[in-house]
Amino acid sequence: MTLRTCLFIGLSLSCICFANAQQDFTQYVNPFIGTSNFGATHPGAIAPRGMASVSPFNVAGDDTDLEKDSRWLSNPYVYENSFLTGFSHVNMSGVGCPDLGVILSMPTTGALETDHLRYGTTYKNEIAKPGYYSVELDNGIKTELTASTRVGVSRYHFPAGKANLLLNLGLGLTNEHGAVLKFNSPTEVEGSRMVGSFCYNNAESAYPIYFVARVSAAPENFGIWDKPATYNGVEAQWMTYNGKTRLKEQFMKEVVGDSIGAYFNYDFKEATQVTLKVGISYVSIANARENLDKEVGASDFDAVYAETKKAWNDKLGVVEVTGDDRDDKTIFYTALYHTQIAPSILNDANGEYPEMNTRKTKHTGGTRYTVFSLWDTYRNYHQLMSLLYPQEQLDMVNSMLAIYDENGWLPKWELNATETFTMVGDPAAVVLADTYLRGITGFDVQKAYKAMLKSADTREANPLRPGIGEYIDLGYVSYDSHIKGPVSTTQEYNIADYAIARLAEALGDKKTAKRFDQRALSYKKLYNKKSGFLQPKMGDGSWYEPFDPLAGANFTENPGFIEGNAWQYLFMQPQDIEGMIQLMGGNQKFEAKLDALFKQGQFDMANEPDIAYPFLYNYLPGKAHKTREKVDELIATYFTNKPAGLPGNDDTGTMSAWLVYAMMGFYPMTPADPGYTLTQPQFEEVIIHLNPQFYERDALVIKNERSRESEASGTFSLNGKSLSTKYVDHKTWVEAGEVIFK
Amino acid sequence: MTLRTCLFIGLSLSCICFANAQQDFTQYVNPFIGTSNFGATHPGAIAPRGMASVSPFNVAGDDTDLEKDSRWLSNPYVYENSFLTGFSHVNMSGVGCPDLGVILSMPTTGALETDHLRYGTTYKNEIAKPGYYSVELDNGIKTELTASTRVGVSRYHFPAGKANLLLNLGLGLTNEHGAVLKFNSPTEVEGSRMVGSFCYNNAESAYPIYFVARVSAAPENFGIWDKPATYNGVEAQWMTYNGKTRLKEQFMKEVVGDSIGAYFNYDFKEATQVTLKVGISYVSIANARENLDKEVGASDFDAVYAETKKAWNDKLGVVEVTGDDRDDKTIFYTALYHTQIAPSILNDANGEYPEMNTRKTKHTGGTRYTVFSLWDTYRNYHQLMSLLYPQEQLDMVNSMLAIYDENGWLPKWELNATETFTMVGDPAAVVLADTYLRGITGFDVQKAYKAMLKSADTREANPLRPGIGEYIDLGYVSYDSHIKGPVSTTQEYNIADYAIARLAEALGDKKTAKRFDQRALSYKKLYNKKSGFLQPKMGDGSWYEPFDPLAGANFTENPGFIEGNAWQYLFMQPQDIEGMIQLMGGNQKFEAKLDALFKQGQFDMANEPDIAYPFLYNYLPGKAHKTREKVDELIATYFTNKPAGLPGNDDTGTMSAWLVYAMMGFYPMTPADPGYTLTQPQFEEVIIHLNPQFYERDALVIKNERSRESEASGTFSLNGKSLSTKYVDHKTWVEAGEVIFK
Repeated sequence: MTLRTCLFIGLSLSCICFANAQQDFTQYVNPFIGTSNFGATHPGAIAPRGMASVSPFNVAGDDTDLEKDSRWLSNPYVYENSFLTGFSHVNMSGVGCPDLGVILSMPTTGALETDHLRYGTTYKNEIAKPGYYSVELDNGIKTELTASTRVGVSRYHFPAGKANLLLNLGLGLTNEHGAVLKFNSPTEVEGSRMVGSFCYNNAESAYPIYFVARVSAAPENFGIWDKPATYNGVEAQWMTYNGKTRLKEQFMKEVVGDSIGAYFNYDFKEATQVTLKVGISYVSIANARENLDKEVGASDFDAVYAETKKAWNDKLGVVEVTGDDRDDKTIFYTALYHTQIAPSILNDANGEYPEMNTRKTKHTGGTRYTVFSLWDTYRNYHQLMSLLYPQEQLDMVNSMLAIYDENGWLPKWELNATETFTMVGDPAAVVLADTYLRGITGFDVQKAYKAMLKSADTREANPLRPGIGEYIDLGYVSYDSHIKGPVSTTQEYNIADYAIARLAEALGDKKTAKRFDQRALSYKKLYNKKSGFLQPKMGDGSWYEPFDPLAGANFTENPGFIEGNAWQYLFMQPQDIEGMIQLMGGNQKFEAKLDALFKQGQFDMANEPDIAYPFLYNYLPGKAHKTREKVDELIATYFTNKPAGLPGNDDTGTMSAWLVYAMMGFYPMTPADPGYTLTQPQFEEVIIHLNPQFYERDALVIKNERSRESEASGTFSLNGKSLSTKYVDHKTWVEAGEVIFK
Repeated sequence: MTLRTCLFIGLSLSCICFANAQQDFTQYVNPFIGTSNFGATHPGAIAPRGMASVSPFNVAGDDTDLEKDSRWLSNPYVYENSFLTGFSHVNMSGVGCPDLGVILSMPTTGALETDHLRYGTTYKNEIAKPGYYSVELDNGIKTELTASTRVGVSRYHFPAGKANLLLNLGLGLTNEHGAVLKFNSPTEVEGSRMVGSFCYNNAESAYPIYFVARVSAAPENFGIWDKPATYNGVEAQWMTYNGKTRLKEQFMKEVVGDSIGAYFNYDFKEATQVTLKVGISYVSIANARENLDKEVGASDFDAVYAETKKAWNDKLGVVEVTGDDRDDKTIFYTALYHTQIAPSILNDANGEYPEMNTRKTKHTGGTRYTVFSLWDTYRNYHQLMSLLYPQEQLDMVNSMLAIYDENGWLPKWELNATETFTMVGDPAAVVLADTYLRGITGFDVQKAYKAMLKSADTREANPLRPGIGEYIDLGYVSYDSHIKGPVSTTQEYNIADYAIARLAEALGDKKTAKRFDQRALSYKKLYNKKSGFLQPKMGDGSWYEPFDPLAGANFTENPGFIEGNAWQYLFMQPQDIEGMIQLMGGNQKFEAKLDALFKQGQFDMANEPDIAYPFLYNYLPGKAHKTREKVDELIATYFTNKPAGLPGNDDTGTMSAWLVYAMMGFYPMTPADPGYTLTQPQFEEVIIHLNPQFYERDALVIKNERSRESEASGTFSLNGKSLSTKYVDHKTWVEAGEVIFK
């Protein structure tokens, strides 16, 4: 259920949601989790999957430790920083590259100052809740933020005296520049801001975000500031204005520039609240205005927040957990919260959205989602969405197919209708197959099948699978192909091919299933029995020398792997767990190697390739307790109710999805294999409300009747029958009604 | 008669114009005159007083002598340059500062190249006529240009093969930057381009020009190029695209940037003509589209040119001259042509135009003119307009009053609804009074009177008359006021005050007339009898030392004068010719001093303060022949049928107005005194068609029955009665019907 459906019904009736409407789940969300330790989340206000969000922006300042331009920094807010220069109205959460973080509002007192290094301020007493953030700025202005899906709303508590409200279109987290601003009246300004080149990539696709901003109080004066680039030619000697900021008072036409902003000047006789509403669109200014009018209109701050809070409760209430530890509940619901930010909504209230690349205006009757960080999310995130929010997962799949229609290719790392080509592999195929195989079939599966075969089999000019020809011919991408991370890439292609095989099988295409089942095992060609590792190989079949299994730790570049080393990628064959155990010499040798990974500190909880490894012990007879112990340990170590309480980048909810699954006691081990491997839940009871439009039962109740201290591994029982912790299929699981861990 | 009126009537009837419709006056116009020697005109295509014009642009290039960024250069085209980088669609003519010269189209062959230094080309066989220009580019593409009032139209004759049509929004004559571009279809692109800071002044008022551009042939491909500024931070190491031009193929949303352009790629099977139509507006893109649709629509190049040619003939045909010398006719009609470019039309076809400074959208039922270079044009230009084009002069006066309404002040040097504050004095008062006193009274004279008194009497925060308090108190602006050119400024204020006195007198306000008549003579306080010059004076009444009458030659800065020296300003008391003769010691001494000016080479035909001086001999008994000789000599020396055929900047038609008057044999000696001083015409006969809506007679015929070689001064006779060459009042002159110079 989306916010909008809920709100629509909610106008006259009480909102009909399948979750418990009385309980306030938002109390268990701490949006500061992930705002340190490079979690890259932000504590700002956002509605579920909101296009707009309003985040404090504290990464620009001379004395700022984690300064946006002095290093690779991907978030508008860092908990440890202390110098705030505004509130950005479009933001990403949990990503590893800088982009967006633009359209910054800022309230100031005294004379007008347009340089953020001078108008910035320290602050105190931050409060963050789902859909709400407040802070006391040390310039004396308390600020509150909330948001509907496409509108950011701020309330500024100005003291008496001279004050200003700024809208800075120059400052931003993105490395793109260029904006347009135009006042329509003393209380409304519209414009656009260029963003893009996410991950310092595909800069040609940089694109505008549109907005319309309204203030609730007519200003004494208003205008636009513009600081053009300093001129260096001989003409500079005649330009008395060279390098200076220009104030264009009451100027009513477009102003274009890299460093421009709008200002509203006030002179308050008494302390006064001013509300700023900023409607956002990726299509046009007209649509930004329509979004503003339709979603917020004349509603005040409190009304907008109340609706958004309700929307969050509907989202979070899909899972109810019972337990004594408030921190456990907090990290759980915060993780669930973080899974509901990206993919976010790209289409406007009227259904319009920009087509891939060309950005021609298109229309959807459903929801066009964006921010598909598929290298991350194919592993567990979409499986979780299929379970908890199947309608959203269906809309996401349909969005991916729309991208294919528009673009000719499925997405890889799609962001706001641009393909950023970030990371490796061909993860879209996995998501499509996995969704279908979990019974969410309300999409054109033949088109999906055709699309995934296209990227799997197109040998030339294939943007999704570089090296595909060699991969088909040799079974691997060679070191001398000069494709980055040839071993990782081969492994990822294997996983995608396995997904294609599974869908082919389901669709009755046995021949294709067989072909791709074979392709899915070609990782074995890169396994060097002597070293016991997957290693980069040359096109002529010889091993790349020298081989260092540690090369690639800490995200450094290395000949074989992307964002990891040979240890971290060693066990990444979820499609062939039994086969890889045999390849490595059987259960005991495999266990020893897996133990060594953890003991030698080579396991990296902060990045995706190895995050399923703790569950591999479940596949070794009698070793399931090790999965339970390792998962317990990882949760305790890396997931805490603190700003640093994520292991690293949240990766658009992938790390959070891991935590949600791990705390509920099951994990989707093999992408495109609709099943789970099981372990002990972290709560006494977990109730999963299932969407009756997709599932026969309306809930799955998981009871945990064992003490955590028990040393035995424990097992689940369903209707009195014991379930293997190794594997239970999705259908059995969701139709169980009640399972008990004993 | 404006183009639009004429066209409107012309649709079904033949166009009713008061000029002789059969004769082709455009054959006598050479638009290359003034394109060298800093005349600052351009040879491009323009309709009378057009908002749009299309000019070849050849002032950007590494090997270009007169390169726009390497020096003070105020025109898009210089005759001697040879490297063409496009055709600019909004241009000024005859001004002394760079601005506009933007929205450059350029046809190229072969692969797409977006760097003007690489796609630029040499050229040959230029042809320029009113409303038409053509050139053979050495890239093989013949190009023809024409224009309606608000639309530039180009026709490109592409050879077979790969070709491109570029629209460069980065390159421009203006020093402002920033543009927006958006494709609406493969054949239509819209956008805006920032311009302003004319004369390196008032950069805060920089503003956008809007356009909609359509091509007649669907391209193979299209897109936008963007070359962002090169990034210098630590992040630059990750930006593989840093400093490179991006091609945004088939991109359908706004792109913002300082260096952007649109491209259309073609691959012609055979030689093909492509027409580009660019509608312009200062209000909005919607208005630019409406201008394009209303004025040009589906009309082809030839039809647009035919209408514009007709409009030019209607304009030029207001004066018919008879004589044997084709060059004389050419310099005369070219001068008349150059008086019909600025002031130009600011309002759109629907009557909308931007308000002063704020640029709020306003509406006029008439014509809102712009480009009021009043320091130049108050001296003779508006007098000529009152005589030849009284409806236009009335619309100009009403435009000036609209500016006062919007702005609170009359214009000084208005450009596209910005006040550029260029030059000194308060010339608007002169234009308003002069127009009224010549019988063109269809404006709110009381408002005009109030407006001129405001700038004359407001002692504080007076943007038009700096130093006004001191001027009122002491009779002059002192050197130690730190106001530039205090002597020039005092002289200009005197002239403006004389105009106010004359209007006060006409309105029956005797007290004010007396007060301003006194103020108009205060220049005498700056006359140093010892030196025989007007000199800068200190606030305490002492002379500024040292005094050098030559300081200020060649436009150098000097303590007393603006753009001139003490010689050049000595006789600039047109309001008190008799008084100044007496001040300087009577007729003989005055004559000797005037002779000395010319003999010593201190007379400057290229700048306005002294251009009326040749006519001063008419005021010395028996010396009228010296006026005739001097005027003959100046015309022969400075005005020729060559690119260098103007003495310097045309100053929005002021130099051309001087020539038109001089060649017709009379000159408006004293601004705000509706009369003329006379001399021998350069033609056998001059017929001035008078607008019957403003004048009783429909024509004034001036017959020249004396040979030029005669040594005596000659005189005019009217109905057999001899007229003094010294002075004839406007009413007598325009009602004479026929005058004969014998």
